[in-house]
Amino acid sequence: MTLTTPTTTTHAVPVAPSTGVLRPLGLDEVSITGGFWGERQAVNGRNTLAHVEHWLEREGWLANFDLAAAGTLPEGRRGREFADSEVYKYLEAVAWEIGRRDAADGAAGASDELERRFRAIVDRVAAAQEADGYLNTRFGRPGQEPRWSDLEWGHELYCLGHLFQAAVARARTRPDVDDGLLVIARRAADLVCEVFGEGGLERICGHAEIEVGLAELARATGEARYLRQAELFVERHGQGTLRDIEWGRSYYQDDVPVRTADALRGHAVRANYLAAGAADVAVENADAELLTSLERQWRRTVERRTYVTGGQGSHHQDEAFGEDFELPSDRAYSETCAGVASIMFSWRMLLAHGDAQYADLIERTLFNVVATSPSAEGTAFYYANTLHQRRPGAPADADEVSPRASSSLRAPWFEVSCCPPNVARTFASLAAYLATVDDSGVQLHQYAPSTIRTRLADGREISLEVSTDYPRDGAVRVRVLADAGGEWTLSLRVPAWAAGARLTVRAAGEAVAQVWPADPQGRAGMTSVTRAFAADDEIVLELPVVPHFTAPDPRVDAVRGCLTVERGPEVFALESVDLIGTPLEASDLADLRVDAAVEPADSERGPVVALRDRRTGAHAAVPLVRYHDWANRGPSTMRVWVPTA
Amino acid sequence: MTLTTPTTTTHAVPVAPSTGVLRPLGLDEVSITGGFWGERQAVNGRNTLAHVEHWLEREGWLANFDLAAAGTLPEGRRGREFADSEVYKYLEAVAWEIGRRDAADGAAGASDELERRFRAIVDRVAAAQEADGYLNTRFGRPGQEPRWSDLEWGHELYCLGHLFQAAVARARTRPDVDDGLLVIARRAADLVCEVFGEGGLERICGHAEIEVGLAELARATGEARYLRQAELFVERHGQGTLRDIEWGRSYYQDDVPVRTADALRGHAVRANYLAAGAADVAVENADAELLTSLERQWRRTVERRTYVTGGQGSHHQDEAFGEDFELPSDRAYSETCAGVASIMFSWRMLLAHGDAQYADLIERTLFNVVATSPSAEGTAFYYANTLHQRRPGAPADADEVSPRASSSLRAPWFEVSCCPPNVARTFASLAAYLATVDDSGVQLHQYAPSTIRTRLADGREISLEVSTDYPRDGAVRVRVLADAGGEWTLSLRVPAWAAGARLTVRAAGEAVAQVWPADPQGRAGMTSVTRAFAADDEIVLELPVVPHFTAPDPRVDAVRGCLTVERGPEVFALESVDLIGTPLEASDLADLRVDAAVEPADSERGPVVALRDRRTGAHAAVPLVRYHDWANRGPSTMRVWVPTA
Repeated sequence: MTLTTPTTTTHAVPVAPSTGVLRPLGLDEVSITGGFWGERQAVNGRNTLAHVEHWLEREGWLANFDLAAAGTLPEGRRGREFADSEVYKYLEAVAWEIGRRDAADGAAGASDELERRFRAIVDRVAAAQEADGYLNTRFGRPGQEPRWSDLEWGHELYCLGHLFQAAVARARTRPDVDDGLLVIARRAADLVCEVFGEGGLERICGHAEIEVGLAELARATGEARYLRQAELFVERHGQGTLRDIEWGRSYYQDDVPVRTADALRGHAVRANYLAAGAADVAVENADAELLTSLERQWRRTVERRTYVTGGQGSHHQDEAFGEDFELPSDRAYSETCAGVASIMFSWRMLLAHGDAQYADLIERTLFNVVATSPSAEGTAFYYANTLHQRRPGAPADADEVSPRASSSLRAPWFEVSCCPPNVARTFASLAAYLATVDDSGVQLHQYAPSTIRTRLADGREISLEVSTDYPRDGAVRVRVLADAGGEWTLSLRVPAWAAGARLTVRAAGEAVAQVWPADPQGRAGMTSVTRAFAADDEIVLELPVVPHFTAPDPRVDAVRGCLTVERGPEVFALESVDLIGTPLEASDLADLRVDAAVEPADSERGPVVALRDRRTGAHAAVPLVRYHDWANRGPSTMRVWVPTA
Repeated sequence: MTLTTPTTTTHAVPVAPSTGVLRPLGLDEVSITGGFWGERQAVNGRNTLAHVEHWLEREGWLANFDLAAAGTLPEGRRGREFADSEVYKYLEAVAWEIGRRDAADGAAGASDELERRFRAIVDRVAAAQEADGYLNTRFGRPGQEPRWSDLEWGHELYCLGHLFQAAVARARTRPDVDDGLLVIARRAADLVCEVFGEGGLERICGHAEIEVGLAELARATGEARYLRQAELFVERHGQGTLRDIEWGRSYYQDDVPVRTADALRGHAVRANYLAAGAADVAVENADAELLTSLERQWRRTVERRTYVTGGQGSHHQDEAFGEDFELPSDRAYSETCAGVASIMFSWRMLLAHGDAQYADLIERTLFNVVATSPSAEGTAFYYANTLHQRRPGAPADADEVSPRASSSLRAPWFEVSCCPPNVARTFASLAAYLATVDDSGVQLHQYAPSTIRTRLADGREISLEVSTDYPRDGAVRVRVLADAGGEWTLSLRVPAWAAGARLTVRAAGEAVAQVWPADPQGRAGMTSVTRAFAADDEIVLELPVVPHFTAPDPRVDAVRGCLTVERGPEVFALESVDLIGTPLEASDLADLRVDAAVEPADSERGPVVALRDRRTGAHAAVPLVRYHDWANRGPSTMRVWVPTA
């Protein structure tokens, strides 16, 4: 199963495994046409991309490449060691956005301006690349530290990993355009293989990412040695080639080999990027042992080291996972980028295994971490996503770089500003995480108004239209747009919370109702219907999107005796601004207790719960806010988990 | 009340306010003769001091002074910016230890070897001082950053603060010896006044400590401008003269002026050192407004930002206080040095006000933070004192510098090694925190086997002997050794937990029993007896030292639904090694629940509580361990707060 010839995918996907249970559909096959995610994609395309480019220029992180080309570095270089990577993440986001517009508009010229900006930046990056392929503005010149001299903190390979992902995004969205980015990436990758390949420097980067970048570059180019290099980097983790540090080598997953670890640990972004790269390597090498280990690690991490929001990482200090059940709401770090990275890992496991548990976590994380980060305008972001805000934060200055990852108000840019472009690339490519195909048919994993046009392996064309107001409403309607000819299977994910979900098929004059679990052939967490679908057949999945209390695992100390409310995939929070005008207006959130005997009632604003002040005795019914919407109404206090009376 | 003439104290005290409700007794007046603290003092003198000096040499922090004297710096300088300060803390510890031995042994020569080592180090420090008084091995030379160029992180003034405290300790313990240390300190202080005085550089040090050092140097030398300089530094906090940083200016208390703050905040050691210095300034300037503000801040900090152990600081990242009630047991930072600093602040408030609440906190912090840090041998230390250990930690290497502040096993030395010498100076000077006098008599604040010989303001001599097995047993016997002539008052602190305490006076053939609260003249938390005591009169305070459950404030989320056990001043913990041999041997601490209906039973090993495993149903009666004794029996898991069934 090892990759030896160029993969043949011509689809605009971030991840194209050569094997696996499911084949992902790309931006050329799936378009989000509206709804919750459609709005966010629109804001991303309209505001966020320009915002990110503005700050990359303003902070001089783009200009670093010009200084490199001019040969005047290190003088004037700005930003941290990893500033180059933000440019690459931005390029990746723009590549996906162009691909998204190409598919949505179907008309040339829809993204001419974006294309122009993209190429301009590629040109600036190209000019900075050295003759042997080396590309980094921070190392290797007279007056700078030597290349590869600070693998612990230098982030050189990490930056290149993001470059490779950008190049792959570009190659798969505009394969016929030669802007040079793929060549830049290949030249850098060739150098990496030369320096770090067998017989070379047997070390790793302190921040995983090169692994996943190399694996995908291998898939996009058919260059097997990139995959081999990814494998080498994966397997070198846990050999202790990086220096021990205050937080231990677990910080950069250099404490235990990937295949013998029992859970993700250390820096949450690093851990997930590495796991995603390891999954790529395992799939391409048909390494069942490694894949099984990753599955086990994924499960333990989700069961014991993940917040109800899907957020990962409990520590501010080292941006790291805590021990099992160490999940404080206070200062929950739950970094936005860890959410993005967790989705990357889960998506690869989903493609490999087809198990809906991975799509469940992706959904939880998308709604409650990634969607929480940006403001409604898409120009300010959370870096960390706390689950408990005890004191109203000071508003972040809209014109200042924020040094803080912990404010209760979103900031336009950070000294370490990975999150804004990471959100941007995720939103721009989101349609590629909705659906897959296998030999038998199509699987829907995430629900959004969308159109799907793809071919099965046997060449039959499938055209579907998905209409839904999800997650406001639980009905997902899939209309078949054309007769594909003969039977095929449509599978839909039934989230773990959706007990009692119902699937109905409506054909001309015929109605079949299937109650979950209806289909013995279905995968875990999926319901399926196999038919010779005709045009205008409609499949309706009804998910019970109603608010309900959720109790924490009794081993999580920090929220013992508390409840939160979930409704569909969304987690809710109690926010102080919702007390205004109620008898609890003067209450401190620390004194409020929720009456667990009164089920939360649905309302337009949010689930309404019965609260009482333990000191004053005052009580009121108060609506909760969607967690991803909190702190959009000025400084406030907030808590996701509310103590019971 | 401003200090204008030399203070006249000839006593060996760390703090000698010129005014205040109580006058502290020094090492020349109080000796600890055994018991819990006597043992720790013995270990400190026998092992810890030599251990600290060994590591100061081994790590080159002492040699830095030699390199400075040789003019070869910056080459070869080792350690962090503040390494000089560890040498000064060590000198202070040795000065107190010499003073302690002088008093205890009463014989010349008892500490000759210590005296020799002390002078040798003073000579090395002296040789490094520059012509204008500047003294720091890290700044100001060609190839180093300029003096005072990095006030945020450079710690130059912080180091000098510790130098001043060492010099004061020396001046008050061996006032007739001229080793030059006081001159070194005065020359440096003169330079500080020149550079940072009125019309000079209007800035502060990023780590408070110079304030408390200058104030005491003023008291020791009568030099009023040192006090004025301390006042300037105190008042400049909150003016934002230090750069804003990721954690905000609250980190170094430069966010809000000292007198308008409402609680301690930011870095817990910095916050307490500053508050201690502010208390000194307030007392000397009769600044009632400032003192009242400090009192208010102290109360809020103790009520809302202090662990049951007395520990302060919730965050690893910035070693800082959290918000009110943000007191997670997981990763409770509770830095050992913050405990030392909190005692410094509380002691100054106690002397100013006489309110026993300050002595209560000192006692809680001494037993459960400062006593927790060192191993039984006094050669390994906790930097941070967590209240919850979820996974057995790896043993610290006894021969390695530990980069970690968070291990579950004590380490011999740290990259930032403030805690070992800070513990050493506290233990060596501990007798100076036991007792005070006022015009009416003597007050006992902490209970240990001890002798007290002092004079009242009217010149009458008081001689007392305290016998007790406290805190194992609650009986404290004070024997009057000589008739002082006429009436005077003996006051004894009754800790807040000691409801039902009983005071009995036994004179020849006469017995008076007083039940608390018995004495309307007594201060809050004190019980007093006024008599013309005769030799061999005995006053017995009986404190109800019995184990009892303690429930947390309902606003502390992290330990909701949990109880801990206290017995006298000691806090207890459930440690996994105590499950061995019981039906709960295989249980995870995360699954154990304590039966709140079964009162903890006293036993030699510790209070015994009824535990049940929520998963297996297994149950057992298990003794708890004194928190300060945990992790002395190999790797283990531990929790101070145990969930109830």
